[in-house]
Amino acid sequence: MDKGIVEKIERIVGKEGYSTDIADRYAYGFDASIFHNSPDIVIQPRTTEQVSEIMKIADAGKIPVVPRGAGTGLCGSAVPIKGGIVLDMSRMDKIKEISVGDMWCIVEAGCVYNDVNAAIGKYGFQFPPSPGSAEAAQIGGMVALNASGMKAVKYGATRDFVLGLTFVKANGDIVHSGTKTIKDSSGYQLARLLVGSEGTLGVITEVILKMTTKPKAAASVLAAFDSPEDAGRCVSALIAKPLIPAACELMDRVSIEAVNTALKNPLPDCQALCIIEVDGEPEIVDKELKVVEEVAKSVGATQVTATHDKALIAKWSNARSSVMVALSSLKPGYSSVSLADDMVVPVSKIPDAVTAYQSIAKKYDVVIATYGHAADGNLHTKMLLDPLSADDWKRGEKAVSEIFDVTVALGGSVTGEHGVGISKAPDFQKERRTELETIKAIKKAMDPNNILNPGKLEQWEGSILRNLRYPCKEFM
Amino acid sequence: MDKGIVEKIERIVGKEGYSTDIADRYAYGFDASIFHNSPDIVIQPRTTEQVSEIMKIADAGKIPVVPRGAGTGLCGSAVPIKGGIVLDMSRMDKIKEISVGDMWCIVEAGCVYNDVNAAIGKYGFQFPPSPGSAEAAQIGGMVALNASGMKAVKYGATRDFVLGLTFVKANGDIVHSGTKTIKDSSGYQLARLLVGSEGTLGVITEVILKMTTKPKAAASVLAAFDSPEDAGRCVSALIAKPLIPAACELMDRVSIEAVNTALKNPLPDCQALCIIEVDGEPEIVDKELKVVEEVAKSVGATQVTATHDKALIAKWSNARSSVMVALSSLKPGYSSVSLADDMVVPVSKIPDAVTAYQSIAKKYDVVIATYGHAADGNLHTKMLLDPLSADDWKRGEKAVSEIFDVTVALGGSVTGEHGVGISKAPDFQKERRTELETIKAIKKAMDPNNILNPGKLEQWEGSILRNLRYPCKEFM
Repeated sequence: MDKGIVEKIERIVGKEGYSTDIADRYAYGFDASIFHNSPDIVIQPRTTEQVSEIMKIADAGKIPVVPRGAGTGLCGSAVPIKGGIVLDMSRMDKIKEISVGDMWCIVEAGCVYNDVNAAIGKYGFQFPPSPGSAEAAQIGGMVALNASGMKAVKYGATRDFVLGLTFVKANGDIVHSGTKTIKDSSGYQLARLLVGSEGTLGVITEVILKMTTKPKAAASVLAAFDSPEDAGRCVSALIAKPLIPAACELMDRVSIEAVNTALKNPLPDCQALCIIEVDGEPEIVDKELKVVEEVAKSVGATQVTATHDKALIAKWSNARSSVMVALSSLKPGYSSVSLADDMVVPVSKIPDAVTAYQSIAKKYDVVIATYGHAADGNLHTKMLLDPLSADDWKRGEKAVSEIFDVTVALGGSVTGEHGVGISKAPDFQKERRTELETIKAIKKAMDPNNILNPGKLEQWEGSILRNLRYPCKEFM
Repeated sequence: MDKGIVEKIERIVGKEGYSTDIADRYAYGFDASIFHNSPDIVIQPRTTEQVSEIMKIADAGKIPVVPRGAGTGLCGSAVPIKGGIVLDMSRMDKIKEISVGDMWCIVEAGCVYNDVNAAIGKYGFQFPPSPGSAEAAQIGGMVALNASGMKAVKYGATRDFVLGLTFVKANGDIVHSGTKTIKDSSGYQLARLLVGSEGTLGVITEVILKMTTKPKAAASVLAAFDSPEDAGRCVSALIAKPLIPAACELMDRVSIEAVNTALKNPLPDCQALCIIEVDGEPEIVDKELKVVEEVAKSVGATQVTATHDKALIAKWSNARSSVMVALSSLKPGYSSVSLADDMVVPVSKIPDAVTAYQSIAKKYDVVIATYGHAADGNLHTKMLLDPLSADDWKRGEKAVSEIFDVTVALGGSVTGEHGVGISKAPDFQKERRTELETIKAIKKAMDPNNILNPGKLEQWEGSILRNLRYPCKEFM
């Protein structure tokens, strides 16, 4: 990076606020995806004003800027594929205000999800989207990806909690969008446009988050089924009741086997299962638990266990979150990789989706585990590959593309909670065909020099097998 | 309007699909605001494809287009101040699909709010934003204004229920944005950008609405207070408990007196009151009702009545919704006008806001009634004016401007649920100062010929006392 520019940056953030060290740059070339590319400099701003000054320099020099939260993203959104600046937001981690009587809190972008919930939880409130990486994920990154997790079906995703945002535009302008109020009809909802923009429209520095009340009790049901179709029908039947569960995790045969092999059988041996959580006031939890049991039995569950026992619930939950790791241990030298990691379909299409994914796995001779947040139609798959084999990657890429085609044909989307990044960019472009021109026009209007996370989303071209983090020669 | 263009329009929608009759044009120059201007033609399309063909003609001829729902808006959003085309969407009123197991329904823009709720209510679901004009308001208009009402505090506003939109761009392109799924992280949330855009970015023709479960029971508390400060503290104390009521209506002295005079005393004679509704499962309603009573007493309520009696609740509700009419009957020849109709402040600032509005009323010698959805900080004021007096209008305009200044200084917004339109445009521009350039850039990117509802929002210039519907000579 040009020496004059580094000097200017040092004047803004001080010696401790940046690094051009090769090891740091290498480390910041990763997120939790399969991709890697080193930036030219890593900057750790402490204020919105510092971000603004940095953006002015970047815009003048047409230097790419990639804002970055905890780097827990699974599809490459934070990988700086064009080099340039990585803005590590983790030092902007202040919870600035909690206004209990107003139902909101104001937090800096670098605040960690669990920390925010610990702080507002003291007052009986929660920010409920529940990303899988809750102990690390930062609020700015969650907004940039519209992140969520197993609780979205009942409580909504990040987009439903953003009342306002402070963000810095490509030209350095500081924008305060939205309000400190629960309602707001004051023109374009710019704050909500930034949700899901993956760092391509502005650098989010501060968020006004709506809070909601924390449930007082929770309980779970584990229901085992003879087929993924029956499990899917259970989820649809529940919602149609209507009963909106707090969470509903589905696992297919491959996921169950992987976990039972790795962890000494925490789960029943069956073709598919659902772990269904209900929460709220204690008397409602008891009432709903019975309804869930009844519904599961009525659609043919072969085993139904309802419990308030926290230890048992934790055992199930641990089993569910171990799928990715368990899968990797199935075949030595193989890794479970995030290629098609978070498709989402209408809930009623889950059985069709699971069946289709399994037949695609067969066709391309790959091992695919399917599991996910079934009550909102969100399905995760992990694929087992030899990451040094070009042939494995190519078969994987084809399988993924077919998985995405099926998903979109079922009325779904290539990503329900992780974002587009690189791995879904080509299929995102297909899925959002009619939106693409508008997306490009807005991007150009807000970032005319194309410095904000360039090359991603609508700008990605060709195969996703570039910038791989694995030393697979053909794709280096 | 040019004959050749009218002929082209007739070819698209048929003879029955449009009118250039002077009476029709005059009628479509109104909405429920204080403004009026006749369009050159009224068109009633029946399909998205017809809207697309019309937009191509309008864009080529640079003819203004104003999409219109039921015309229940209070701030002039649907008044065609530049003439041109009014697109009356009321014939696109089909409920296209209700997918109970998927938690959504797909409705055309012209569907009426109450009709949608009647249809999905059969399955135990609701679309809860509850605009005051529920029996007429159309879904397209609600999306365009991010409309809501008294239930937003617990259930959210329209923005929180829009999963996807079909809209037609200025150039006629048809865009399918969003998904048929509860979650969606697939890039920019274009559907949510259209929310609140008031017809300036595209013509909304179809909406995918998230549904939520309908509560099984409801009950209410009426609490009377010696001051609006006490009433405001009651609301904040409730939320801080935390207890999120389904609705919480506040009325000040002027509102109470107006209603008690017009309707033979349905309400207690007091300085301020709150009508607080709780809903949900029956046992929770009973539990929460007691908490509401306790909280009201603890902050000094002088009278507290809790009831499940539907007749009594209806009497209170009718009293509350009669404020506007009751106020008009106070002084013969005077009208209650919507100037500052739906400010919103952080809940904790309600007492400050109510007190400030009352002192502004004194300063400008106008009668101002304040009431509203207090639990989300949404305050309505109505002003009593002689609509033929230029002096009254000028004092009113000054009072409104001060009301808006106070509101924004308290951390609020000029509009919580009705939109910007004309009456709030100058103060919207002040409030959204840092957003304005981005708003203009997006508008230009999406509507380069500026044909979609031109002259509104960020484009309005000067005093709001133009295009008045009243025959007040100075402003005609």
